[in-house]
Amino acid sequence: MSGITTPQGFRAAGITAGIKASGKPDMALVVNDGPEYTAAAVFTSNRIVAAPVTLSRKNISNGVIRAVLFNSGNANACNGKPGLAEASELAERMAAALDIAPEDMGVCSTGIIGERLPMDIMRAGVDALPAALGIDQGDAAAEAIMTTDTVPKSAQVRRDGWSIGGMGKGVGMMAPALATMLVCLTTDAKISAAAAQEALKKAVDQTFNTLDIDGSTSTNDTVFLLANGASGIQPSQAELDAAVLEICADIADQLQADAEGVTKRVRIIVEGANSDAEALNAARALGRDNLFKCAMFGSDPNWGRVLAAIGTADAEMDPDNITVTFNGHVVCKETQGTPDAREVDLSGADIEVRVDLGLGGEGRALVRTTDLSHAYVEINSAYST
Amino acid sequence: MSGITTPQGFRAAGITAGIKASGKPDMALVVNDGPEYTAAAVFTSNRIVAAPVTLSRKNISNGVIRAVLFNSGNANACNGKPGLAEASELAERMAAALDIAPEDMGVCSTGIIGERLPMDIMRAGVDALPAALGIDQGDAAAEAIMTTDTVPKSAQVRRDGWSIGGMGKGVGMMAPALATMLVCLTTDAKISAAAAQEALKKAVDQTFNTLDIDGSTSTNDTVFLLANGASGIQPSQAELDAAVLEICADIADQLQADAEGVTKRVRIIVEGANSDAEALNAARALGRDNLFKCAMFGSDPNWGRVLAAIGTADAEMDPDNITVTFNGHVVCKETQGTPDAREVDLSGADIEVRVDLGLGGEGRALVRTTDLSHAYVEINSAYST
Repeated sequence: MSGITTPQGFRAAGITAGIKASGKPDMALVVNDGPEYTAAAVFTSNRIVAAPVTLSRKNISNGVIRAVLFNSGNANACNGKPGLAEASELAERMAAALDIAPEDMGVCSTGIIGERLPMDIMRAGVDALPAALGIDQGDAAAEAIMTTDTVPKSAQVRRDGWSIGGMGKGVGMMAPALATMLVCLTTDAKISAAAAQEALKKAVDQTFNTLDIDGSTSTNDTVFLLANGASGIQPSQAELDAAVLEICADIADQLQADAEGVTKRVRIIVEGANSDAEALNAARALGRDNLFKCAMFGSDPNWGRVLAAIGTADAEMDPDNITVTFNGHVVCKETQGTPDAREVDLSGADIEVRVDLGLGGEGRALVRTTDLSHAYVEINSAYST
Repeated sequence: MSGITTPQGFRAAGITAGIKASGKPDMALVVNDGPEYTAAAVFTSNRIVAAPVTLSRKNISNGVIRAVLFNSGNANACNGKPGLAEASELAERMAAALDIAPEDMGVCSTGIIGERLPMDIMRAGVDALPAALGIDQGDAAAEAIMTTDTVPKSAQVRRDGWSIGGMGKGVGMMAPALATMLVCLTTDAKISAAAAQEALKKAVDQTFNTLDIDGSTSTNDTVFLLANGASGIQPSQAELDAAVLEICADIADQLQADAEGVTKRVRIIVEGANSDAEALNAARALGRDNLFKCAMFGSDPNWGRVLAAIGTADAEMDPDNITVTFNGHVVCKETQGTPDAREVDLSGADIEVRVDLGLGGEGRALVRTTDLSHAYVEINSAYST
């Protein structure tokens, strides 16, 4: 067993309902078979949220979710009351087929915004999903939630007697690219909803929230954590935190590597700031700067663009004492270039950029981003048409 | 007479000193021959500023500037104390040649960040500039400040007995692309430094500050307004404001049209907001969103991306009552797509996007941006190398 079906007591399914013109798999289901039905979730920070986010937020308010229904190919976003009614109808139909309460369903959609769901196709998909469920169908589910992803993403973390499984799609969180980021985690650990929420929130902050591909934030981003206690093992909060962080980091790495049009993975570390929050502002300002991202695409050690971007950030800094390091080589010290700065080799696929704001503070942050390539423009200039 | 030398009592020069490897013109000078030497300026908001900005800020503090020395091909940014010393040396040398006080010089540089100025070449350039001065050399000056600009930008506004002339380069202000935005305006109106500063600040806010090509902000952005009172005419503040606004709008249009890799000019208007500031936040969030900009490049009426971007803005909105209009066609009403939304023709070079945040407020803002094209990536991925 691997991925989302690694822990005991979870089944998954992935099928081709026909939402996508490509004929690729497009509906998935994850079912928690208990004995407990504990759930936690983190949703998009966008003010405009898709119908499935509205519905899932409502349903998870009591800390219980027994199954999550996924579809790709249509985000069911910006469809108003009809969109919410249709998300609810599909959730109720799925719940009835599984013989569970409709308010114990989670729903996640990803794909184009502003198109109504193809309801006839999806009703038939809902009806077909239960027969496809299996304890070995985690990979099928991971494949069915893909949009522009080129590979499915799944991961597992095994501990003594319990485990966490997961699947994900998309490129970024709170700032994803073209498509929504959806992640579902499962565990057979025996944990409370509060413990699950605490572990998930901390892990998301340190992993998915450090991904910033293009500064865009989806209407649909959702991360679920479902727990059933089937192992009978009750990890400490610290043990749970570590395991959830480990699997989130694994999936975040996979998302970054598959981001749209990526030729470079760029890790930005800002330090010497007055606070972690200011360091994060500075790291995000750099991670979103198109000039910097184009330079990375060109393997161009143009540290001047790093300074120009950092200087715009909402963060205190010493403008005369900024240090920039590319892949361990100091290219700028006291806000001036070093003699061999232009000779640093950035031709590899992984680039680490470190910026010290020169204040001697403890504030520190990490942001993972990517280069800005021709392929990014290509993919995103002809999406809906 | 046209451009910067339109008003009486100004001379300009543009020469090839040899800073640029291309052999194109790269140094310019604008001289105010009086009788008054009033000046106003607006500088970059970047925390990290180039040496010429530091020097010009100091020199303009008394409201007097008699001449401005420009160079392209090197920004003299992030060069520390040596960079400032070199900017000062060139200003002093120029002032001596013009027989004016060194503290009455303005200096503007644009080009690559972090390279020291080629001082021998530039000293010779300074020595050659006075002989090139002429009341018909405005176009030569405008050409000598270009970097990746494909055409020189100049403009003039004529009033009864007085005029304003101007030149500019670059693409954006407070958020320019690859290169710095530099603008110099001249007028023979008789105005105080306070009146000049008021008119300039207001005009910059309504023109250059609405340009947002890629969210990047240069270390060197500078807008100068020089006034000599040679016409003897003293316009009212309202007359001055209107004329300065008109010439700034003209140059801003030229900058937007020549932005790097542009195939589309996009005007974003946000209305129905609680305040102008919140409307501006929302317009900027959209104008900087790469997914939206790629869709514009592809002439793709993907209004879902407009909503996804607007929803991330720091602005109050009614998430269920947002209206989006492309080129006058309503594509989204009450946060839902209209039936023919995907059929809107965006194939032209100019696209207007209007977003109503649905609060019924008076808050309104305009941002001019561009699409994100293959050419942008091409130009910016191989700049310093």
